[in-house]
Amino acid sequence: MGKLPPGVSASDFAAAVQLFKAAVGEEWVLTSDADVDPYRDTFSTVWGTPEERVPSGAVSPTTVEQVQAIVRAANRYKIPLFPISTGKNFAYGGPSPNLDGSVIVDLKRMNKIIEVDEGRHFALVEPGVSYFDLYRYIQDHGYKLWIDCPDPGWGSPVGNSLDHGIGYTLGFYRDHFGAHCGMEVVLASGEVMRTGMGAMPNAKSWQDYKYGYGPDPSGLFAQGNYGIVTKMGFRLMPQPEYYRTGMITVPKRQDFIQLVKTVNYLSDSFLIGEPIYGSPLRALMGNAAFRETLDKPAGPTDAEMDKFASDNNLHSWDVELQFYGPEKTCLATWEYAKDRFAADIPGAKSYEGENLKVPLTPRQMQNIDSPYPTGIRRNVAQGFPSLGVWKMLGRTSGYPDSDGTMQGHAGFIPIVPRTGEAVFEAQRVFGDTMKEFDLPRFGSALGTPVEWYQFAFQMGFVPSTSKTNPEHNLKVHKALRQMTEVAAEHGWGDYRVPPIYQDFVVNTYSFNNHVLRRFNETLKDAVDPNGILAPGRGGVWPQRFRGMRKI
Amino acid sequence: MGKLPPGVSASDFAAAVQLFKAAVGEEWVLTSDADVDPYRDTFSTVWGTPEERVPSGAVSPTTVEQVQAIVRAANRYKIPLFPISTGKNFAYGGPSPNLDGSVIVDLKRMNKIIEVDEGRHFALVEPGVSYFDLYRYIQDHGYKLWIDCPDPGWGSPVGNSLDHGIGYTLGFYRDHFGAHCGMEVVLASGEVMRTGMGAMPNAKSWQDYKYGYGPDPSGLFAQGNYGIVTKMGFRLMPQPEYYRTGMITVPKRQDFIQLVKTVNYLSDSFLIGEPIYGSPLRALMGNAAFRETLDKPAGPTDAEMDKFASDNNLHSWDVELQFYGPEKTCLATWEYAKDRFAADIPGAKSYEGENLKVPLTPRQMQNIDSPYPTGIRRNVAQGFPSLGVWKMLGRTSGYPDSDGTMQGHAGFIPIVPRTGEAVFEAQRVFGDTMKEFDLPRFGSALGTPVEWYQFAFQMGFVPSTSKTNPEHNLKVHKALRQMTEVAAEHGWGDYRVPPIYQDFVVNTYSFNNHVLRRFNETLKDAVDPNGILAPGRGGVWPQRFRGMRKI
Repeated sequence: MGKLPPGVSASDFAAAVQLFKAAVGEEWVLTSDADVDPYRDTFSTVWGTPEERVPSGAVSPTTVEQVQAIVRAANRYKIPLFPISTGKNFAYGGPSPNLDGSVIVDLKRMNKIIEVDEGRHFALVEPGVSYFDLYRYIQDHGYKLWIDCPDPGWGSPVGNSLDHGIGYTLGFYRDHFGAHCGMEVVLASGEVMRTGMGAMPNAKSWQDYKYGYGPDPSGLFAQGNYGIVTKMGFRLMPQPEYYRTGMITVPKRQDFIQLVKTVNYLSDSFLIGEPIYGSPLRALMGNAAFRETLDKPAGPTDAEMDKFASDNNLHSWDVELQFYGPEKTCLATWEYAKDRFAADIPGAKSYEGENLKVPLTPRQMQNIDSPYPTGIRRNVAQGFPSLGVWKMLGRTSGYPDSDGTMQGHAGFIPIVPRTGEAVFEAQRVFGDTMKEFDLPRFGSALGTPVEWYQFAFQMGFVPSTSKTNPEHNLKVHKALRQMTEVAAEHGWGDYRVPPIYQDFVVNTYSFNNHVLRRFNETLKDAVDPNGILAPGRGGVWPQRFRGMRKI
Repeated sequence: MGKLPPGVSASDFAAAVQLFKAAVGEEWVLTSDADVDPYRDTFSTVWGTPEERVPSGAVSPTTVEQVQAIVRAANRYKIPLFPISTGKNFAYGGPSPNLDGSVIVDLKRMNKIIEVDEGRHFALVEPGVSYFDLYRYIQDHGYKLWIDCPDPGWGSPVGNSLDHGIGYTLGFYRDHFGAHCGMEVVLASGEVMRTGMGAMPNAKSWQDYKYGYGPDPSGLFAQGNYGIVTKMGFRLMPQPEYYRTGMITVPKRQDFIQLVKTVNYLSDSFLIGEPIYGSPLRALMGNAAFRETLDKPAGPTDAEMDKFASDNNLHSWDVELQFYGPEKTCLATWEYAKDRFAADIPGAKSYEGENLKVPLTPRQMQNIDSPYPTGIRRNVAQGFPSLGVWKMLGRTSGYPDSDGTMQGHAGFIPIVPRTGEAVFEAQRVFGDTMKEFDLPRFGSALGTPVEWYQFAFQMGFVPSTSKTNPEHNLKVHKALRQMTEVAAEHGWGDYRVPPIYQDFVVNTYSFNNHVLRRFNETLKDAVDPNGILAPGRGGVWPQRFRGMRKI
C-alpha cells in the first residue's frame, strides 16, 4: 500500500476502504503498491524523489450515487480524495495528487455520453468519456458536428476543461472551459448540485444557457477543489463545409508588431481559427554564425536579424491562417486577408495553402498529400482526435533516456500580452534566463507565441523529463522554477502546471498579499470543512492541511 | 430619512453615516427623504405598496479607497449596502435594493476609462462609465473599435454585465459577462482583489486571459453579492468593414423548426450576428377571424395558420440575418445562406437588405433611408449607443397612465431551448396562461424568440407599469408571478428580474432541495459574515437576514 494520508490512522483508512468497497465493489478499490503505481506521474520532474506526490489508493465508481457514497465515507474518516477523469494528463501531473496519500477517485468508468444534440450543437458527457469516444459517437450517428480536442485524443472533455485545457479550431471552441455549458457536481457534503439552467428540476435548457439565475459558482470547479464534476455540457462546432489555409510572410523583424495586430483583427472578428506563427529564419539554425548571433546576451539587434534574412533571401516571420466555413466565405476572407496584410505591411507576401471539402477523405485525414509535411497538428485543427502529437514531441525533444525508455516532458507556458512588443521582450527575457541552463534552446529571438486562447499569447518551453536520469530532471526542475519566477517579475503568469508546481505558481499570483488565494481558501473551508476534496489543487489548501503548502 | 436597515439602531446608523461622510465628503452622503426618493424603482410593479424595497440613504464614492472605507464602516456598524453603477436599470429594479433600508453605494462618480487597447481590442473601465462615455472616448481617439451595448446607452458596461445583460452584435460580444476580461473587487472585508491575470502584482496581461491560475470566482460577482466591482475589463469588437442584412421567409408554420436549425448552424459557425425572428402574419392582427383563431384554447392548428398564410399570400415566418466583416465575406456568407435555406426548406425566399460601409454616415446612423423604417434597434446592432428603444416601447406598450405621466414596464423573459418545437410549446403554454389576464396579448402562435444569448432562446413578455394605477400594477404583478411558475413547471427559467422577484425566481431553481442556493449562501456567510453586501441579491441572503427571504 502507498503512503497513508497525513493524520489518518491505518484503522480509519481501512474502515474507509471497506466503505469504498461496499460502494463500488471490492475489485474497484485499489490499495496495493502494484495497483497504485500507475497513479504516479510518469512524466514527473521529481520522479522517485521525496518531492513526488503519491496516492494511497484508488477507487473507481460508475455512477453519481457511488461518487456520493465515496465522498460520504471520506468525510466520515477524513480521507483526502483526488478525482481524475480519463486520459493521461501528461506534462500536467498525470493522475498524481497534490497531497501525498490522497485516494484517487478514478472516474474513467463513468463513460456515458448522455446526450448529443445536432440542432443545438452540444454534448452532455460524463468524466470518463474521451475525445475519441465522443468523436466515434458523433461519426456513428452521422451528426454534422465537430469536436475541438487537445493534442492527444485519449483525454476527457470534462477533465481537460476543468484544467483550463485548450484545442485548435475556432477561438470560442478552443477555450474548453469557456465552451462548457452546465455541470453536475458532487459536493464535499455528498450532495449533487447542478449549475446554470440545470438548477431547475425540470430543466429543458441546461445546455442552452450556462448562467441560470443568480451567482454562478462554476468557475470554482476548474483548477479548483470544491466538488467532483460528474456531468458536463460542451458546445460543439457545426461541421464547416470547407477548411482552407493560407500563409503570410513579412520581411523584417519589426514587422511582427503589425503582423500581430492584423491577425488580432481577423481573430477577434471571428474570421479565422488559430493563427500559427513561425519564422522562416529557423532554416538557418545550422549556420554557426547565425546561432552565435542568436545567443548574444540580450539577443541580436533588429539590423543583425534583418541582414541574415535579406542575405539568405528569407522573410523574418510567417503566420499560417486557417479558415472554416462555406467555400466562398473562406475564399473571400482569405482574399481580404491577403489585401489587408499587403496594405498594412510593406513587402508582406501570401501563399496559398489547402482548400479541403469537409468531411475530409481518409488520405486527407492522414495528411498524405499536404503541402505541409510537418503538419502533424492539422488533425486537431480539422475536428478529429489523434495521437499524432507524440510523433512531433518525439522528434523535437532532445534527451532520450540512456536505457531507451520513453522520455516525458514538462511544460512552462506562461500567458504574455498579445502584442509583438511583448513577444520580443519575452524572447529576450526567457532567452537570457535559459542561457544558465544546459537545456534545449528556448526563447531566442526566433521564439513565436501560440494563440491557443483566442485573446492571449503563450510562449512555450517544453523540456524533456526522464525516469532514469535524475540529474537531468533536477536541471529541468530548477529551470522551470526559475523561468516561473523570472516571468512573474515581468508580469507573465503560468496557466496550467502539475500539482508539484501549483503552490509555486499560485504564489506568483500574489496581488494584495495573496488575497485571491485567501478568498478561495475561505470559500473552501466553508464548503469542505474536513478538507477532503483534492486538498491543494489549484493552490487551495483547506484549513486542515494548510501547512502542507510547499512554495 | 428612509427606512432604517432591519436590526440597526438609529445611533449606529448615524455613526456609520458620519464615517461615510468622512470618507466621501458630506455632500455625497444622502439620507433625506427627498434625496433618497430617486433611488426608488420608478418602474416598480409594487410602487407605493408595502412590498416596495426602499433604501435608507446613499453614498457616492469616487475612488477604490473610498469604497473600501465605506465597506469597513458598514462592517463596523453592520449596515447593509447595495452597490449600483450608472444608468437606469429600468425593468430590472432600477436602483432599488433587495433589503429595505440598505444604503445605496452609488458608483456613478467612479467614471474613469482606465485603458482602451486598439490592438488587443479591450477596455478597462470603472462602474460609473456609461456606454455613451465609452463610445465617445473611442470616437475621440479614432479607434477602430465597436462597443456592444444594450438598448439604452446610458447604462454601465460594468453594471450591465454584472446583471447578465446583453447586446446586439456578434454572439460572443452579446454576452456581456462572457465578454468580460478581468475584474477588481472590494470584498466585504474591505480588501481589494483582482481576478484572472490581475492577481499578479505586475500583470501585463490582465485583459488577455481571464482565468489566471487556480479556481476563478468571477462568476460569483454577477447577479451575486460577494463584493463591489470597482474595475472591469471588456473585449471590444474590431470595427467591421461592412454591415449587411438579408431576410429569409418560409411559407409554412412547421417550417419554423428547420428555420431555427439552419440559423443555429450559421450562428454557431460565427457567420452571423443576432438573428431576428418575426412573422409576416402579424399583418393580419386587424383581421377579427384571424385574432379569434389565435385566441382559441391551446391555440390554432397548423392547418388553420397555413390557410391564413396562403389565403393572404403571406409567409409564416421570417428571420433577418445580420453580417459583419469584409464586404466580400458578408456577401459570400449571405449567398451561402440563401442557397442553404432554399435547399433546407421548400418555398423559402430571400430578400436583400442593406449593405453599409462602416463607419456609417450620420444619415445611415439615423436610419433615414433604411428599407426597415421600424428598425429602431439597428443602432445597437451597428455598434453605437442610443436611446431609440424608448420610441419602440412607447409605441407598443398599451397602458398610458390616466394622468399622462410616463409609464414603465416590467419584463418576464425566460430562457427556452433553441428549437422550433420549444417555441411552439412556449407559445401555447404562455398564451393559455395569459388568457386569464386582461393584459396585452403575449405568447400567441405568432410569438417569436429573441436570441440575445448566442446559444439560447428567450420569449419575452413586457407589460407596462404605472405610478398612478395600482390595480393595473397588481394585475401585472400577478401575471409575472404566474408566468414564472408556469414556465418553471415546463423547465423554462427567468434570466434577470428586479429585486422584488429574485427570491421568487431563484426558488424555481430548486434542484435537489435548493442545493445551489444553499451552496451560494454557505459561500456568502464565509466571506461576508456580517451580511453587509447587497443582502438578498440573486436570492442569496446572508445568515443574519435569511429570514427576509420572500418567496
